[in-house]
Amino acid sequence: MYNLDFKSDRSMDLVGIGRLCIDLNADQFNRPMEETTSFTKYVGGSPANIAIGAARLGLRSGFIGKVSDDQMGRFIQQYLQKNNIDVNGVSVDDTGAVTGLAFTEIKSPENCSILMYRDNVADLKLDTTNVSEDYIQQSKALLISGTALAASPSREAVFLALDYAKKHGVIVFFDLDYRAYSWNNDKETAVYYNLVAEKCDVIIGTREEFDMMEQFENFSQDDHKTANKWFDYSAEIVVIKHGSEGSIAYTKEGQTERSGIFKTKVLKTFGAGDAYASSFIYGLMNGWDLDQGMQFGSASASIVISKHSCSDAMPTVEEINQFLKSASISEKE
Amino acid sequence: MYNLDFKSDRSMDLVGIGRLCIDLNADQFNRPMEETTSFTKYVGGSPANIAIGAARLGLRSGFIGKVSDDQMGRFIQQYLQKNNIDVNGVSVDDTGAVTGLAFTEIKSPENCSILMYRDNVADLKLDTTNVSEDYIQQSKALLISGTALAASPSREAVFLALDYAKKHGVIVFFDLDYRAYSWNNDKETAVYYNLVAEKCDVIIGTREEFDMMEQFENFSQDDHKTANKWFDYSAEIVVIKHGSEGSIAYTKEGQTERSGIFKTKVLKTFGAGDAYASSFIYGLMNGWDLDQGMQFGSASASIVISKHSCSDAMPTVEEINQFLKSASISEKE
Amino acid sequence: MYNLDFKSDRSMDLVGIGRLCIDLNADQFNRPMEETTSFTKYVGGSPANIAIGAARLGLRSGFIGKVSDDQMGRFIQQYLQKNNIDVNGVSVDDTGAVTGLAFTEIKSPENCSILMYRDNVADLKLDTTNVSEDYIQQSKALLISGTALAASPSREAVFLALDYAKKHGVIVFFDLDYRAYSWNNDKETAVYYNLVAEKCDVIIGTREEFDMMEQFENFSQDDHKTANKWFDYSAEIVVIKHGSEGSIAYTKEGQTERSGIFKTKVLKTFGAGDAYASSFIYGLMNGWDLDQGMQFGSASASIVISKHSCSDAMPTVEEINQFLKSASISEKE
Amino acid sequence: MYNLDFKSDRSMDLVGIGRLCIDLNADQFNRPMEETTSFTKYVGGSPANIAIGAARLGLRSGFIGKVSDDQMGRFIQQYLQKNNIDVNGVSVDDTGAVTGLAFTEIKSPENCSILMYRDNVADLKLDTTNVSEDYIQQSKALLISGTALAASPSREAVFLALDYAKKHGVIVFFDLDYRAYSWNNDKETAVYYNLVAEKCDVIIGTREEFDMMEQFENFSQDDHKTANKWFDYSAEIVVIKHGSEGSIAYTKEGQTERSGIFKTKVLKTFGAGDAYASSFIYGLMNGWDLDQGMQFGSASASIVISKHSCSDAMPTVEEINQFLKSASISEKE
Repeated sequence: MYNLDFKSDRSMDLVGIGRLCIDLNADQFNRPMEETTSFTKYVGGSPANIAIGAARLGLRSGFIGKVSDDQMGRFIQQYLQKNNIDVNGVSVDDTGAVTGLAFTEIKSPENCSILMYRDNVADLKLDTTNVSEDYIQQSKALLISGTALAASPSREAVFLALDYAKKHGVIVFFDLDYRAYSWNNDKETAVYYNLVAEKCDVIIGTREEFDMMEQFENFSQDDHKTANKWFDYSAEIVVIKHGSEGSIAYTKEGQTERSGIFKTKVLKTFGAGDAYASSFIYGLMNGWDLDQGMQFGSASASIVISKHSCSDAMPTVEEINQFLKSASISEKE
Repeated sequence: MYNLDFKSDRSMDLVGIGRLCIDLNADQFNRPMEETTSFTKYVGGSPANIAIGAARLGLRSGFIGKVSDDQMGRFIQQYLQKNNIDVNGVSVDDTGAVTGLAFTEIKSPENCSILMYRDNVADLKLDTTNVSEDYIQQSKALLISGTALAASPSREAVFLALDYAKKHGVIVFFDLDYRAYSWNNDKETAVYYNLVAEKCDVIIGTREEFDMMEQFENFSQDDHKTANKWFDYSAEIVVIKHGSEGSIAYTKEGQTERSGIFKTKVLKTFGAGDAYASSFIYGLMNGWDLDQGMQFGSASASIVISKHSCSDAMPTVEEINQFLKSASISEKE
Repeated sequence: MYNLDFKSDRSMDLVGIGRLCIDLNADQFNRPMEETTSFTKYVGGSPANIAIGAARLGLRSGFIGKVSDDQMGRFIQQYLQKNNIDVNGVSVDDTGAVTGLAFTEIKSPENCSILMYRDNVADLKLDTTNVSEDYIQQSKALLISGTALAASPSREAVFLALDYAKKHGVIVFFDLDYRAYSWNNDKETAVYYNLVAEKCDVIIGTREEFDMMEQFENFSQDDHKTANKWFDYSAEIVVIKHGSEGSIAYTKEGQTERSGIFKTKVLKTFGAGDAYASSFIYGLMNGWDLDQGMQFGSASASIVISKHSCSDAMPTVEEINQFLKSASISEKE
Repeated sequence: MYNLDFKSDRSMDLVGIGRLCIDLNADQFNRPMEETTSFTKYVGGSPANIAIGAARLGLRSGFIGKVSDDQMGRFIQQYLQKNNIDVNGVSVDDTGAVTGLAFTEIKSPENCSILMYRDNVADLKLDTTNVSEDYIQQSKALLISGTALAASPSREAVFLALDYAKKHGVIVFFDLDYRAYSWNNDKETAVYYNLVAEKCDVIIGTREEFDMMEQFENFSQDDHKTANKWFDYSAEIVVIKHGSEGSIAYTKEGQTERSGIFKTKVLKTFGAGDAYASSFIYGLMNGWDLDQGMQFGSASASIVISKHSCSDAMPTVEEINQFLKSASISEKE
């Protein structure tokens, strides 16, 4: 069991904060990008994907972010609105920033890479003046994505949002989403990740991400110690993902749950984590048992990695249930 | 008549210097970019387009530029090579720069715009150490594109290339290609454009570009005075383009030629100038009369604006001749 | 009473972290700087001054900082060593940074100002790799100066030092030392000051500095509420300074002490806070009663503001006792 | 003989453009800076020194530059005015820039060095909008100092001033004043120095400075070839300085003059070149024979290097004549 007190008097369920980008996914698969000739445009960015996934599942979602003042930025805003995401927390940059881009290359289902455009991007221009205390206190939960910590002034905006959330009893989910290319060095990264994690209720990340955060510790690669470290601060649940080995969740109250992954026809690996997070959060916000939420997350991930996009492929409850009926899970111990 | 002494003992005809980029052209036309869903990838950048155009016409072409060390940069190099352009002058950036991008939006044939990604681009990282005196002296002509002057160290690389060209009797073409977004202010722009133009043999630009360069002068918008100003320095030919009104060419020896444009079914306006320049240069390098070269340039421009890409649409001599047979020119006085 | 557990098994008493600079104090007083003709050179920077003051009083002091690789940096290192401060934690910059400068202008004792040189300064280049866990755990106490939070990578170095201090039971003093010119905006400032203050044992600042930190709170300018806020985190003692009105200290255990200032012949106001902090810390580390430490601090401040320098004027215990014998305090309620 | 047509109808004789700085000269000599304790403040910067020197000799001088909006900037303006230099061309920075500083270290008369503060300096913020065509055309001559070319926007401001000077028949002196620390690399440096030198009437520099400018040439270290190169452009006189060996001047009309240096009691070597330039220019503007001007320059240099400051030590005509009466020159062949 776990103890997350979602306030019932809030008008929104989940507000994401951080990256709003564009994915440009190669239309031609199984070849290097030098040989692709066209790209399809999708909204992207980990917290954007999670917010879209949550909205598809029926959560009343909102977003705090910043978009460029051009066609790309307007496309993002319009897409969020079409997906029933409140955009009152989304600001428009006025400094000439651009929208971050991620060109995907799918050499094979197991060999995918991304070519990023992250110079002068609008999402990292989010600043403290763009973060409304009033907006945050209207929500049951806040989702923080670690990439938003990579640079000022976005970094400070996240800390301020976190302060407001704590002040108003908003449950905070922290999806680590560590992207080395965004950071100067891993010591700085660990400093900020730890400062945020100390104040969060639910922390979700890969084993490698937690390793990065533990570089100043004496223990290493011990999931149980990792979880306990954060239970000493504010965490109620810690989820550690092990790729194809599945994931493991710990609760402050002592529960441990493992979850495998579903076999599926994989097109690309992108988006699995975001799909998992959105569905797992959905489960928690509905008071489900941990194992049920984890299974729901794994199913959602399997659906997304079989499709071309991340955001646009986020499934509904019905799709996930349909998938679960026909799927066979490969459980790991 | 004009007096351009192309040295016959050179192994290349034309070396371009400057921008090597990617165009991402919307696959869906006649709508704002917010509503386009996919883009096709082409090599772009004015001097790249001119070099490709020149190579298609049979000129032995080379290039001095810098590409990113990623899939985009390798695509550019491969495309140049496929088009018989020597890439021994093309360097690979080692600082983490990206390839410049131009997303095109075709709302209507008359209403086209470009969304540029120009932060931290590899082409502007070209520096003096990348410019080989030996490479330049192997060519009959050097083509300078003004955008390469927009920032250091590319700016200094161009000045050095220009010095080498003058030292070795390489004829210098200056395509103004002024893009306001690349510059801090128009006074700085004019300073550098003028410093380069003083040393060039052939200067090609729009009336608006020459206006920018003449902001410190007492005369304005007088094509004849514009041309004479540069004849007092090194110019032999000055071409001033007036959009749909056609263009006008002056020679130091006193000749004036006007040229109209051909009627065609326009898809977009991009690429017209680059097509014109490559074909006009081809004419000059073959010793054609001015009017013949201008007509050839106008035909080439008409072909390119009827197609989806700029670079990939550059015509061969046969295509231009075929076009000229069937075309009716709308001459302007 | 207060409860600060200084570990007795440490080889150092106090390690400062942050700014190491040069003061250039006008040799001519009571005139604008336009009319001064020469300057005398001293080591400066708030934490440097406090460390020097503490060393003069007999505390075994050390420092974590970064100096420029030039004559100014070497002068600072030599001066610290002459004052019996361990410099094993002081790194030398290798990026071409300079030493920060503070030119003082003394128009009158009440009208002093500083002209700062803070571009590309070595002290703010301190980074996480320069912070040794081993060094910090050798000390009873760590002194953090807020200005070191103003920019990366110094900011992250301070957070890391703070983590190490907490891990090893090192008592942390936080001298707010807020200098608006070092920061982008006061929201960012408050975010970082609060993140640090949450983990500190003793917080010392002016009323204005605490106001800056409380801009997201609903209360304001209430010393008691200010103190209580930090007692909810880690603080044991909070000292709030009110300029010529004296200062007030609160302890977590409920004690409140007020202290006035001593009348003296003032030359300039600089250095009063640093002298106060070093002597007050000396008192705490000797287990003195709060009021005794505060009086000692006020006496030290009075001595320093009657002299030309800050660092070089830091008094010994004997000097302070001598001063106290002859001084009459103007107590405020 | 030489042919410099100074227009008689101008209200100013000489306008300098470029660096306005502060020298902080160690009050203690013959020791490393770590051991100096105080500094005296003077106006500094090569073109400032030359303008001050010229004004002391009676030339009606003006200046185009930018100073910081603080006590240092105001001190510079006031000092220039006290020395009868017109400051209508001096702008005040509004971006928070500081005044450049030069701390001098005099270990011995032969071993002097400078510690520079050149980050975010006001003098390099001079931009094209600060350069008045009207101001320049009021002067007989313009003095360009090469350091002003080291960065944008100052670089473009110099090119614009040069254009205005050429347009209005203002004679242009180019004092090379090359400081490696201000530049990215020597190829860029050479590019810009050459672009300016091509348009100047009188070029004054050391052999090492000309070597830097000739790195793309096939000849080297040949004074005569150096001079001839510039006679092919616009130069009328080229002066090449060989340190203690004296200097050599060439005219376009074929004259060659050598000049030695005077024996004097040297305090420091700074300022010799600026004193020489101001007095040599004075000679040219009075129509003196080359050798007379060179001797006057050498005498002025000897006076300055025997004193503590550069700017403040600039001599009057009477002082130089007095010196010449008693001096014995050590002529070199």
